Amino acid sequence: MAKIYYASRTAPVNIADLNLPTNSSISVTLSQKDLRTLTTASCSQDFEKDELWLNGQSHSLDTPRTQQCLSDLRKYREELEARDESLPKLSKMHLHIVSENNFPTAAGLASSAAGFAALISAIAKLYELPQTASDLSKIARKGSGSACRSLFGGYVAWEMGELENGEDSKAVEIAPLSHWPDMKACILVVSDDKKDVPSTSGMQLTVKTSPLFQHRIEKVVPQRFEEMKKSIMEKNFPLFAELTMKDSNSFHATCLDSYPPIFYLNDTSKRIIKLINLLNESVGEIIAAYTYDAGPNAVIYYEHKNESRVLGLLHAVFSSVDGWQKIDVKSLTPPSIELDPTWGSGVSRVILTEVGAGPQDSDEVLINVETGLPK
Amino acid sequence: MAKIYYASRTAPVNIADLNLPTNSSISVTLSQKDLRTLTTASCSQDFEKDELWLNGQSHSLDTPRTQQCLSDLRKYREELEARDESLPKLSKMHLHIVSENNFPTAAGLASSAAGFAALISAIAKLYELPQTASDLSKIARKGSGSACRSLFGGYVAWEMGELENGEDSKAVEIAPLSHWPDMKACILVVSDDKKDVPSTSGMQLTVKTSPLFQHRIEKVVPQRFEEMKKSIMEKNFPLFAELTMKDSNSFHATCLDSYPPIFYLNDTSKRIIKLINLLNESVGEIIAAYTYDAGPNAVIYYEHKNESRVLGLLHAVFSSVDGWQKIDVKSLTPPSIELDPTWGSGVSRVILTEVGAGPQDSDEVLINVETGLPK
Repeated sequence: MAKIYYASRTAPVNIADLNLPTNSSISVTLSQKDLRTLTTASCSQDFEKDELWLNGQSHSLDTPRTQQCLSDLRKYREELEARDESLPKLSKMHLHIVSENNFPTAAGLASSAAGFAALISAIAKLYELPQTASDLSKIARKGSGSACRSLFGGYVAWEMGELENGEDSKAVEIAPLSHWPDMKACILVVSDDKKDVPSTSGMQLTVKTSPLFQHRIEKVVPQRFEEMKKSIMEKNFPLFAELTMKDSNSFHATCLDSYPPIFYLNDTSKRIIKLINLLNESVGEIIAAYTYDAGPNAVIYYEHKNESRVLGLLHAVFSSVDGWQKIDVKSLTPPSIELDPTWGSGVSRVILTEVGAGPQDSDEVLINVETGLPK
Repeated sequence: MAKIYYASRTAPVNIADLNLPTNSSISVTLSQKDLRTLTTASCSQDFEKDELWLNGQSHSLDTPRTQQCLSDLRKYREELEARDESLPKLSKMHLHIVSENNFPTAAGLASSAAGFAALISAIAKLYELPQTASDLSKIARKGSGSACRSLFGGYVAWEMGELENGEDSKAVEIAPLSHWPDMKACILVVSDDKKDVPSTSGMQLTVKTSPLFQHRIEKVVPQRFEEMKKSIMEKNFPLFAELTMKDSNSFHATCLDSYPPIFYLNDTSKRIIKLINLLNESVGEIIAAYTYDAGPNAVIYYEHKNESRVLGLLHAVFSSVDGWQKIDVKSLTPPSIELDPTWGSGVSRVILTEVGAGPQDSDEVLINVETGLPK
């Protein structure tokens, strides 16, 4: 076997409402202690094709979107190799990529953003590319829209740009993790194991068929985008929370306005929304916010100083599920809200996390450097 | 006891999406064979106050909205009495009103429209008013917005008018029952007995807080209103159905876009929506439409010629509930759709009905004409 070159990187999960490349959006990057993808990228003259192993299973890299990303990265590598003849011709070699999440797939969390970001980031490291995270985000965007945001830590904007072909669409940092490190997130994984009537879903349907979606994109989102940036710069949690909840509502409203309608929120998701409203009302200020991506799982934001009250309520309702061992639940002080024992159903797990950093180097190597196959 | 004057009228239920007096809307009046309110209005010099008995229970007539309606009707009566001195001075007497629905309140159907329409209609008959149904609809609107539509049979438009004070807001007939008598409706009563987190609801919240609502009212509804009229004039069911479903989606989308959001559709409602989509897809044309008012109950429209296929599917899924005895279920031919036995849960009753006529005179008298109290 010829020499195997390799490099490992990790990338985080990020939370934003709308994965559609039709409007600028803001996201919060979550801590990799709790949720991350680790990827080892390797290449060798002896590899016969590009291959990917994801959580122990072989996956095809032969999709147009992925091939576009690999081709872009190889082009950057070629430029380096053209300038410096001493560099090994990695751009001509096939890639073996091994990727692992530190959270169970069964958690039902969308991991494609972290996965693609780690893939791009690991190959960029392997190729020793000089490109910035924003440059790489342009590539990541082509693979999985929301992946571009996972190339940054802290608070991130995905700017759509002006060009028709989307070449100037990229992610930028609004504020680093250190600017507002008190932002906590509790993910409520909503079990969705009931057999449901199959539905035609897909965000392209919303773009095509929802009259309210056009209004959202043209009028509602641009204004909220600026206000949201401001709320982050000012660390104004009540404003951040209100905008987050309103934008989540608005996104899911346009899904419902599609024809046929798309439903991501189920009765459990709606119950969590009402619980958060009840919490904020009982406290008399906005100390928690919900947001939902394209699925029923809730992300609840709150500031560290309010942890006792926010997790106090959530633990009181969802105490029976896995995930609470990270905190001392006895120290929580739930607000005095009368709860019904049936409200706890429909959630299968909580993940307690917080705002986190962007992709990191890793010493872990997921590939056997003798055989070029996953360890 | 002085002489008791009395008159009885019935009024129908009507189905439209949006009960908000912020946009013109179109409704279908349902048959009184299945759903109607019967009201006897009576008056006598000896009655000491205005009183109402509804389904056997005493209710107050002392609300500003109701008093406004009674005052308007008495003013019209006074005009008659002023012109013809021989008429008894009914306008000076207190009213005893007795009202009964022919469907159980437990069915969870909004009956206030039929109730108010029957009340207005019965008093107008008692007073022998010459006013047209559209004139009376202006009064009914003040009591309960959607009631104005229940003063007509067939296909009805509620026109908002131009005046700030709403005085020109009234219902008009688009087409009578006889124009398109083949329109059938299957109401699926969705059980909502789960204890839920209380929520701040109310349509005024949507008007105040939903940015998408403004767009819906200004841009989306006016165009659909004209297309919907056209679809009824042309008896174009697929167009009528598509507009009905889209408008239902749009209405509930703006509820979700409210802050805090309002949810009327639950998981059962959503399952029914998907079933209707599945049905139309499997048949290859739109033969059924769903619509939802401010609640989880579904109204499914279809034309008589497609009854076997539409009710075939609905009976296959919801066979265990009450309400099917009206038809010969053995003659139904459900489309070949693979069904899951769990899909039938969450519905407590079906009501099979169709488009119907407006308010009618009735020989039934709900009041004891000796005592002035309910029989």
